[in-house]
Amino acid sequence: MKISIIGTGLIGGSMALKLREKGIADFIYGIDNNQQHISEALSLNIIDAGTDLEYGVKNADFIIIAVPVDAARKLLPGVLDLISDKQTVMDAGSTKAGIVNAVKDHPKRSRFVAFHPMWGTENNGPGSAVSESFTGKAGVICNKEESAADALQLAEKVAESLDMHLIYMNAEDHDIHTAYISHISHITSYALANTVLEKEREEETIFQLASSGFSSTVRLAKSHPEMWVPIFKQNKENVLDVLNEHITQLRKFKAALEKENYEYLEELISNANRIRGILR
Amino acid sequence: MKISIIGTGLIGGSMALKLREKGIADFIYGIDNNQQHISEALSLNIIDAGTDLEYGVKNADFIIIAVPVDAARKLLPGVLDLISDKQTVMDAGSTKAGIVNAVKDHPKRSRFVAFHPMWGTENNGPGSAVSESFTGKAGVICNKEESAADALQLAEKVAESLDMHLIYMNAEDHDIHTAYISHISHITSYALANTVLEKEREEETIFQLASSGFSSTVRLAKSHPEMWVPIFKQNKENVLDVLNEHITQLRKFKAALEKENYEYLEELISNANRIRGILR
Repeated sequence: MKISIIGTGLIGGSMALKLREKGIADFIYGIDNNQQHISEALSLNIIDAGTDLEYGVKNADFIIIAVPVDAARKLLPGVLDLISDKQTVMDAGSTKAGIVNAVKDHPKRSRFVAFHPMWGTENNGPGSAVSESFTGKAGVICNKEESAADALQLAEKVAESLDMHLIYMNAEDHDIHTAYISHISHITSYALANTVLEKEREEETIFQLASSGFSSTVRLAKSHPEMWVPIFKQNKENVLDVLNEHITQLRKFKAALEKENYEYLEELISNANRIRGILR
Repeated sequence: MKISIIGTGLIGGSMALKLREKGIADFIYGIDNNQQHISEALSLNIIDAGTDLEYGVKNADFIIIAVPVDAARKLLPGVLDLISDKQTVMDAGSTKAGIVNAVKDHPKRSRFVAFHPMWGTENNGPGSAVSESFTGKAGVICNKEESAADALQLAEKVAESLDMHLIYMNAEDHDIHTAYISHISHITSYALANTVLEKEREEETIFQLASSGFSSTVRLAKSHPEMWVPIFKQNKENVLDVLNEHITQLRKFKAALEKENYEYLEELISNANRIRGILR
């Protein structure tokens, strides 16, 4: 089938590579405000042609929206206006309640499938796209009862072609869970980077000493604001809840140290160790 | 030469493997309170023989102390009591001021080299030892002017055999820098794990959704209290300084979100992105 990918960056580009590899896409249109991305995606053989939004949407069987979540929410109603009942639209955003609510009463709502592939890196642009990115990761479909059976089926086929395992959830629950599982990790990582940059003025020392533990906790702090500000904005209430809880947890470590209560410190650490049983 | 390794866990075991591989050790004694570790280390060919502290210290050219930092500080004076001026002792602890001060006035002080290999994982025990662990990482030698020239030279040779690049620093500076580069990462990771475990009661959901970003920020939360409580205890003042700064940085994200000041949020993130220029 013909697939149009709106947003030819890390996520859209990685999807395109894999869907072509799997033979599910025989022609891929790329749509991107950034002409540099179109040129790069063409030269990397990620897309077959660059085109504009209207042409791309009208001439594809399956449309994937892979732009920052605020842009996706604004785009989606117009995309649905353009399509027929034979076409299907899927997004790939990290927040789901906003976009689902934006098209709740749209006459073509049932042609849309709300999707979140749980994968990303701190890099962006078509140059960082990798076909195996999604393999083994979770793909979440939200509010599936609001999608037409054939649209849902096609989106599932696409997600499975990405080698993801599917999870179904309502959009509100999704946004609560991702605040814990993904969004807060980015905030702590940004704050950690700012802490080090604030106090450790000798950049050469950071670079020389940085251990693998530091690099892995700080890696996400390289993620771009263009993607993350809209996520935090759309998931503000949940992110604030988690952030407050996280500050409370950090204060317990502070109190244990200040009071030299090392039994309590050990208890806090042993409790955190329980994550071993959950994450391999 | 004959090497004795006190503490045959992740660090001691990994050193033993590499030093044997490089041919710098032709016989390795293992000393460990945990007999299970000795058996494991023997069967994994990490050590040639298990022995007691006194025999091991008296019969080796080079002695490596690789036990938790509080135990190391207690052990070191007794180890120095046992050795001659032809032997050298090196430690491998993550805090340095405490151990250096503990032997400041010891008559054999010059036979000791204070060392910190900047590497570790969340795993422990001889079974997790890997010979290539230290390759390309920083090895810090503290207060080198307090070590005899020949002891220092031998310790440098050992560190270079581990394929580490050497950095020299005084112990107080080391403890400030590692509070930023390593210790705070562990606290944020523990606190993040506790945040998720507190709020996200559905463990199955954590497991299913966990993305690579979450796994990498939370990985360090698997690290054991036996190692980390003593580190936080010995580096209390510096760790508290950094922790306070970190909470301040998190509060800025909280304020930006609460006030819906997304320009400020973008500024905070862009500032954190500067870490890109420092860490590859």
